[in-house]
Amino acid sequence: MSAFLQVVGQASPDDLSGLRALVESEQLDPKRIVAFLNKTEGNGCVNDFARGYCAHVLHEYLSGELGPEAAEKALLIMSGGCEGVLSPHMNVFSQDGPESDQVTGGLAIGAGKTRDFKAEEIGRMAMVEETARLATELMESLSLSKEDVHFVQIKCPLIRSSDVTEAQEKGVSLATTDTLKSMGYSRGASSLGAAVALGEVELSGLDDSKILGALDLYSGVASSSSGIELRCCEVLIMGNSPLSRSPLRIGHAVMQDALDRDAVVQACVESQGMTDGNFDPEKVANVFAKSEVDPSGMIRGKRHTMLQDSDVSGTRMSRAVVGAIVASVLGRTQVYVSGGAEHQGPPGGGPVAAISWI
Amino acid sequence: MSAFLQVVGQASPDDLSGLRALVESEQLDPKRIVAFLNKTEGNGCVNDFARGYCAHVLHEYLSGELGPEAAEKALLIMSGGCEGVLSPHMNVFSQDGPESDQVTGGLAIGAGKTRDFKAEEIGRMAMVEETARLATELMESLSLSKEDVHFVQIKCPLIRSSDVTEAQEKGVSLATTDTLKSMGYSRGASSLGAAVALGEVELSGLDDSKILGALDLYSGVASSSSGIELRCCEVLIMGNSPLSRSPLRIGHAVMQDALDRDAVVQACVESQGMTDGNFDPEKVANVFAKSEVDPSGMIRGKRHTMLQDSDVSGTRMSRAVVGAIVASVLGRTQVYVSGGAEHQGPPGGGPVAAISWI
Amino acid sequence: MSAFLQVVGQASPDDLSGLRALVESEQLDPKRIVAFLNKTEGNGCVNDFARGYCAHVLHEYLSGELGPEAAEKALLIMSGGCEGVLSPHMNVFSQDGPESDQVTGGLAIGAGKTRDFKAEEIGRMAMVEETARLATELMESLSLSKEDVHFVQIKCPLIRSSDVTEAQEKGVSLATTDTLKSMGYSRGASSLGAAVALGEVELSGLDDSKILGALDLYSGVASSSSGIELRCCEVLIMGNSPLSRSPLRIGHAVMQDALDRDAVVQACVESQGMTDGNFDPEKVANVFAKSEVDPSGMIRGKRHTMLQDSDVSGTRMSRAVVGAIVASVLGRTQVYVSGGAEHQGPPGGGPVAAISWI
Amino acid sequence: MSAFLQVVGQASPDDLSGLRALVESEQLDPKRIVAFLNKTEGNGCVNDFARGYCAHVLHEYLSGELGPEAAEKALLIMSGGCEGVLSPHMNVFSQDGPESDQVTGGLAIGAGKTRDFKAEEIGRMAMVEETARLATELMESLSLSKEDVHFVQIKCPLIRSSDVTEAQEKGVSLATTDTLKSMGYSRGASSLGAAVALGEVELSGLDDSKILGALDLYSGVASSSSGIELRCCEVLIMGNSPLSRSPLRIGHAVMQDALDRDAVVQACVESQGMTDGNFDPEKVANVFAKSEVDPSGMIRGKRHTMLQDSDVSGTRMSRAVVGAIVASVLGRTQVYVSGGAEHQGPPGGGPVAAISWI
Ligand SMILES: [Ca+2]
Ligand SMILES: [Ca+2]
Ligand SMILES: [Ca+2]
Ligand SMILES: [Ca+2]
Repeated sequence: MSAFLQVVGQASPDDLSGLRALVESEQLDPKRIVAFLNKTEGNGCVNDFARGYCAHVLHEYLSGELGPEAAEKALLIMSGGCEGVLSPHMNVFSQDGPESDQVTGGLAIGAGKTRDFKAEEIGRMAMVEETARLATELMESLSLSKEDVHFVQIKCPLIRSSDVTEAQEKGVSLATTDTLKSMGYSRGASSLGAAVALGEVELSGLDDSKILGALDLYSGVASSSSGIELRCCEVLIMGNSPLSRSPLRIGHAVMQDALDRDAVVQACVESQGMTDGNFDPEKVANVFAKSEVDPSGMIRGKRHTMLQDSDVSGTRMSRAVVGAIVASVLGRTQVYVSGGAEHQGPPGGGPVAAISWI
Repeated sequence: MSAFLQVVGQASPDDLSGLRALVESEQLDPKRIVAFLNKTEGNGCVNDFARGYCAHVLHEYLSGELGPEAAEKALLIMSGGCEGVLSPHMNVFSQDGPESDQVTGGLAIGAGKTRDFKAEEIGRMAMVEETARLATELMESLSLSKEDVHFVQIKCPLIRSSDVTEAQEKGVSLATTDTLKSMGYSRGASSLGAAVALGEVELSGLDDSKILGALDLYSGVASSSSGIELRCCEVLIMGNSPLSRSPLRIGHAVMQDALDRDAVVQACVESQGMTDGNFDPEKVANVFAKSEVDPSGMIRGKRHTMLQDSDVSGTRMSRAVVGAIVASVLGRTQVYVSGGAEHQGPPGGGPVAAISWI
Repeated sequence: MSAFLQVVGQASPDDLSGLRALVESEQLDPKRIVAFLNKTEGNGCVNDFARGYCAHVLHEYLSGELGPEAAEKALLIMSGGCEGVLSPHMNVFSQDGPESDQVTGGLAIGAGKTRDFKAEEIGRMAMVEETARLATELMESLSLSKEDVHFVQIKCPLIRSSDVTEAQEKGVSLATTDTLKSMGYSRGASSLGAAVALGEVELSGLDDSKILGALDLYSGVASSSSGIELRCCEVLIMGNSPLSRSPLRIGHAVMQDALDRDAVVQACVESQGMTDGNFDPEKVANVFAKSEVDPSGMIRGKRHTMLQDSDVSGTRMSRAVVGAIVASVLGRTQVYVSGGAEHQGPPGGGPVAAISWI
Repeated sequence: MSAFLQVVGQASPDDLSGLRALVESEQLDPKRIVAFLNKTEGNGCVNDFARGYCAHVLHEYLSGELGPEAAEKALLIMSGGCEGVLSPHMNVFSQDGPESDQVTGGLAIGAGKTRDFKAEEIGRMAMVEETARLATELMESLSLSKEDVHFVQIKCPLIRSSDVTEAQEKGVSLATTDTLKSMGYSRGASSLGAAVALGEVELSGLDDSKILGALDLYSGVASSSSGIELRCCEVLIMGNSPLSRSPLRIGHAVMQDALDRDAVVQACVESQGMTDGNFDPEKVANVFAKSEVDPSGMIRGKRHTMLQDSDVSGTRMSRAVVGAIVASVLGRTQVYVSGGAEHQGPPGGGPVAAISWI
């Protein structure tokens, strides 16, 4: 067993030239691709069509390379929003590639999809339970214990304008009728699903009211991203498996707030297995972080303005902030920061993972 | 001679409660105020009325305390835009306050205003020359050599929509007819004025075409901010003067790009006169930095999207980025970051100054 | 009894030159001013400081003219947002001015303020009841029957970021914790208050869940505008009173959707008492309309995108649309269109009133 | 010869369900498609990926139906921005379809592409000349005299961020280095090309400085739309040809400003050949209008705020305004309004065309 990560820049959402170059030079076998985890350059909010556009061209490409059926297997997780210094790029995860000499404990990845959710299930317990079930299944398939898991990336659906209309016609209640807000409910519920699977939160202690209602319940490794282009949850689990001979290792930490640079450093250090607190930025394949506007309206005891700015969504600003922090740690800007960290790390903070070459 | 800095948070652009508290508790004598250098929470662009609002209430307050004539003397420099973690606050600079035991070399500040500019002079050589003249005059009055100067804050006008109409009627050409863009021309020209005064750029090598045309000509200490609420340039010069017994000292460095965390550290270290590269964040009164979207469209060799984002002005995003970097160095968010660094530091970068308690 | 309306353009939120000119030329006696109903040029959303700025300078001006106590009496209702062709202006309502020869039935206006509301009362029944009480009181003071009332303008508070924090600390529930959304709750509750006073809706049929929950309950004359600058509701009632000898008359209609040009025409016709369906645009003093994004996501059977646009608030776009419709009826752009018509006219539509010279 | 127009709504940029339904029910033969003229729902500015996404899926669809080579022939003109009530839709133009009994004078359309332009040619005389050449060629092929032409739709390129970088490296000057602004230069130059072909403007009177410099030179029928997804100009010419037996006819007028409702009515009337000033909205297939922020900063003698709003691009607001006007004339919202009318109609105004069933 092995897992592999390649980072490829994009000049636009439909630019596959970097990917094609990897394949043509035989550095990447498309059959081995498990998932794309992309930073695309739309607004990362409801009307972000760059995500769907990029996913569309990737699917088209894979269909051409692998045939339509095999193309369905790769997860296409598009996280919108390249604010500030963040640079659009793809993280291509593949399996069963080059193996290192190390016997065990390298990066292992597993991917799967839940069933499609009805609009009235989005952001509610059905989503928590179904996501937990899938995450548990994936962990078992990789022989990952709870402690071995360092990142659970989830792509989850949102409630669309048309869902609201239909629900009103049918007299069905939804978690929210605000499309932008539904992204938060969906991220929250699916993250709690990961937390349940990892034993961070008890399923018995949860009900619909806790989703966005009890933000002190959270996962330290979940990273959820919401988009209009799917109706199910796609789950990508990452850990260091006793079965894996990958030349990569993953580590993680939890940012306590948007300025928690030390947590970013710590994730890098852990991924390189260093004990002296140092790490080599050159050996970091990439960093994956979640950002969030602190819902208290304060950060480090002082007021921020992100919740009162009606011109720019706070999720955009929070990505710009965490993106700057992560980029300043690595000295480069093709880093993965995804916005909206409800039930992912504490309020105002979120998980951060690093994958390094051993 | 002495100079003093107090940092006061604001709950809204018209919130003077913190300022009043300082005055009422006799920690600040309004007669000694030289300038306000405020981070206000509008968009920092053309239609930012939070700047004017804050300046209005400050002027009203000073008039009540000092009488209308004396109130005119204090500079009211409002820098709009508290993106990301930046927290709205006032930097109150005052003179002739508490003196330290140190004999010489403390912070000295001087303030003045140029004449009002005609619309057709904004962003052109008339602005360069007039600003240079005023800066030189202020330096002389403080006995500051060129090397002693560490920050030249300038508030400069912009070309308004009505100016464009008038100019078209009169057949007069302007530096630009784009109101947002005029902010850049104005910042550029006034910064080159500071550069001329400090010997960083030769006046003889400049003409109108160089303003925004030759960005490799720049000042390492100028910090210009443009606003609709004034027609002249207001200049606030800061340095360490042989005549000053202030308990504060200033240092500076030049950020080479938006992620240049080392320059922020260096400015802090220099302000504390340390030789071992360390500094005490608690002793830093505040940091003053300029931010800028890298005009090449790249940062650290990778593409950024700030120049192609038609939804959010790049200056807003660049403040969010540099604000995050500076805040992560100090561990706090009432820091001063002002956007638009044309001819202030290299393209993509800008000056940063720190003022510390000795 | 008489009532009067003067329309004055503004070059910026703090521009009082037009108002001063009216006073200096004795066309307006500041003592007679009852209310300002202004279109100011901020974003009309949470962080719109142009409203507060304009209100501040008006208050300062009135204090200078009338003394601080008398200055408190005039309502300062600032409606933010001059999108599209809408041109910033003041509607100055005054009393007891020039009387016409007509014996009865001219414009009468009355103004008052409720008590301040606690954050947890905003958008709830306490606001409905208190607003209804005040509206009834004002109608009685003007001898207006329910049929005589054609416009009830209300300025209401919103839930601020700091309210949310405080409420969470105190364990108090709020109508919503979303500051932008709280504007809708507050507009809805205060409009239902007007509907109760006018017998359009039964108080006994209302409870908290109906506010934004039962949008088919509405007033055909209420117009509510929410802002961060006040904590009470300010109510301005307008009707044709048997006691009034004003040379102005008011009429109204209800726009069924944002494109309902006929309703705008009908309000103008009614205000001029015409029976042939025609009216003279020159005789219209001004038109006052409410705009709203159709919450169904559809207009005239086709999808609109205003609810899915995360870059521009739908209230901004809806003001641009209704502003264009009203301006095209009158052939001019200093018209009053205020956004957010929850419980004001049917979903997607809102009241429109016209005041004309007889 | 015949020409045909079908209007199809879209639920998202990649929604082809309406188009497929037309083809499957044999109401449309894909081989006959000449051009798509779509209103897509991005921001209509630089980073609008909805245009490219829609064009991509259309191209994919046509390739599947017609083979890759034939698919290249159809123009895919995507006009971004469905602000306000505007509803996303496709206008599918086809040829050689059902013919009416009328002998002559029905709608005729012709389409073509210029060569690709270098970045330094965009917005300059090379673009004017090349577009004029192509338009003339298309007119000849349809036997259209200058008076027969009622609409010339052009899709033109813009200067990208990467073009600016390259130009600076090569020392090549561009019409502008501002990507958003380049859209205006490109629209202006290509519209002047149409004006030259139609004899509205003399080629000999033009040079680079006139492009955006002499806005009184304009075409009354050109409609240009700029996008990042092409490097050439695509031209779609529409007129009533003596050779055409189409059941459709086209008429046009020039809106003098954004509120010029009469011009919209006039175009509809002309398209239906009515002499009494009336027309039947049911018979109008669609209306095609250009919108523009009045560059004087005024409309109908009063100030507008669209040029000073740094949060929302003025082109977005102007589409919302003209969209509302056109929709109110037709009573429906799937109407085509494209932003940016430089050298298309007078400053602040633009051409409007209507196509009706005879
Ligand atoms: Ca969190
Ligand atoms: Ca710079
Ligand atoms: Ca309504
Ligand atoms: Ca035009």
